[in-house]
Amino acid sequence: MEIGLFHSVQWPEGSSQSDRYRQALRQACHADELGFDSVWLTEHHFSRHGIVSDSLAVLAHLAARTEHVRLGTAVSVLPLHNPLRLAETAATVDQLSGGRLELGVGRGYQVGEFTGFGIDIAEKKERFDEAIEVLYRAWTSDAPFTHEGRYFRYEDAAPQPRPLQVPPPIWVATDSPDGLASCARHDWGVLLPQGTSLDVTATQLHRYHDALSAHGRGVADARVYLARAAHVAPTDDQAWNEAEGPYRSFLSYADKLRRGLKPGAAESGRSPFDMNADLRASALFGSPESVIAGLSKIHDLGIDRVMLFVHMGELPHDKIMDSLTLFAREVLPVVHRL
Amino acid sequence: MEIGLFHSVQWPEGSSQSDRYRQALRQACHADELGFDSVWLTEHHFSRHGIVSDSLAVLAHLAARTEHVRLGTAVSVLPLHNPLRLAETAATVDQLSGGRLELGVGRGYQVGEFTGFGIDIAEKKERFDEAIEVLYRAWTSDAPFTHEGRYFRYEDAAPQPRPLQVPPPIWVATDSPDGLASCARHDWGVLLPQGTSLDVTATQLHRYHDALSAHGRGVADARVYLARAAHVAPTDDQAWNEAEGPYRSFLSYADKLRRGLKPGAAESGRSPFDMNADLRASALFGSPESVIAGLSKIHDLGIDRVMLFVHMGELPHDKIMDSLTLFAREVLPVVHRL
Repeated sequence: MEIGLFHSVQWPEGSSQSDRYRQALRQACHADELGFDSVWLTEHHFSRHGIVSDSLAVLAHLAARTEHVRLGTAVSVLPLHNPLRLAETAATVDQLSGGRLELGVGRGYQVGEFTGFGIDIAEKKERFDEAIEVLYRAWTSDAPFTHEGRYFRYEDAAPQPRPLQVPPPIWVATDSPDGLASCARHDWGVLLPQGTSLDVTATQLHRYHDALSAHGRGVADARVYLARAAHVAPTDDQAWNEAEGPYRSFLSYADKLRRGLKPGAAESGRSPFDMNADLRASALFGSPESVIAGLSKIHDLGIDRVMLFVHMGELPHDKIMDSLTLFAREVLPVVHRL
Repeated sequence: MEIGLFHSVQWPEGSSQSDRYRQALRQACHADELGFDSVWLTEHHFSRHGIVSDSLAVLAHLAARTEHVRLGTAVSVLPLHNPLRLAETAATVDQLSGGRLELGVGRGYQVGEFTGFGIDIAEKKERFDEAIEVLYRAWTSDAPFTHEGRYFRYEDAAPQPRPLQVPPPIWVATDSPDGLASCARHDWGVLLPQGTSLDVTATQLHRYHDALSAHGRGVADARVYLARAAHVAPTDDQAWNEAEGPYRSFLSYADKLRRGLKPGAAESGRSPFDMNADLRASALFGSPESVIAGLSKIHDLGIDRVMLFVHMGELPHDKIMDSLTLFAREVLPVVHRL
């Protein structure tokens, strides 16, 4: 299996943003040094939930501080971007990292992020589709290109720099039949969310496999990265005691943002988090043995890439570093061989 | 005096973008190690003239690879940006660099950059003014803010992260009476261009001093960073032989871009480069002694910050590195004391 970090910088009340950035980046570098395979950064705006608003700029920074890890976004919220600029920036990160970029993209779900940018959340699907078309043209056109879209118009654009990977790998956060069909058709990877039970994950995976076979591909063509909350400690009890409270706080704040912080605001629809999910059936909290068992179950489903959500706002930095160290010593050598 | 680099990544025919990025970044790190004071990056789009399209992402990268230099943009082309995103990204770089950001901004002058992004170059002044207003509100508002502008609308935006410097220092590329009056009024620094003779620079400086006194400030309040092409070698002859050709190629390509690469395209107006300027009266090419003399003349005018344009597309990397090394050994200790 391939194991990465699904990483963010959270900003709990009373904490310093500089401290939070410093710690989260140190955790990412630690993961690189320990032999993890990837670091994926979220993009969020206007709240304590995640204060990485320009995830590609932070990946440009990590490109200098890491050597091995693939550097991903999970996700770049396409409807909030000018896609030509995003294409340029993604190519820049690909250059700066020696071709280590993985571009995860999504449609977004937090109402406040859309109103903040003055964008109607009802446009998110159309904006997403236009953006992804522009990304591909920007990365793969040999000559200056012109685009007349609904939201963007470009004339004779020849974006520089060129990406090293042509095109950089795309991953889409989706589990809808439509979204999975697009992934199957275009050979985009699929990002599946944390906070769901493995039963739900299995359903999502089957839906993706169906989409693949509808497009003449097989299960062997599937590319899935599953996100899971994770925390390792010497015993199950210690791991749960340390991580459960901070993770529940994170989930409940995320759900509030989905509903909008202002009372009466329109909901944005479905959250990636299932607030009723049994944490015991979704989170990888426990001793190394328990977490190996949890990852093996995921592997048995047919998923061989998992990104770990380890940076929960209220969990102290040293606990996260210890968890990563223990994971790398006891879990990684075993699951890397799965 | 303070001495920085006015830096870009050029992409001459036949060269590899990866090589060019690697070399230009190595030059910037070399300057940091040698005791230069700052590195400023240009932003350009769609041409060989400069393949840094996201200068702040590259500064985020350099924040990890440098320790001392101030990290500037020279300039961020404001009319081409969504200013709320730019505010977030600038704050991110300020965090990642421990408060080393200097944000140079300008209105832009290359027609092709505007048409590429589907933006009417005639709007550049209004877009610039709106953008700078948004930047300040984004950096300094304690509460979520709403903005109803001509080009952008934001509602309840509380951009994160916050900058470390509140606000980050602003520098404006301008020499018009209007532009200089704004700089004097708002205490923004002034970026003066390379490629002009010192007589022209003196005129620009007097105009700025007039603007300062019209706003109740004195010459001591002036903040000017002057750009100059520079190349040092053991002898004047060697320096001119190495640098003159590459610099003339650079200037002539820049002038072509101002006019638009397509025949018949509307000109964008004034270029920052004076194609008729006598290079002997503007470029700092020469032996260490000659360059010290040139910098002393600039200092005598009342300018104590100079950013050196050393990365000319056709000038080989090792010549640039040698020039920086020699500059740091022979020139920097002298002019730092001026």
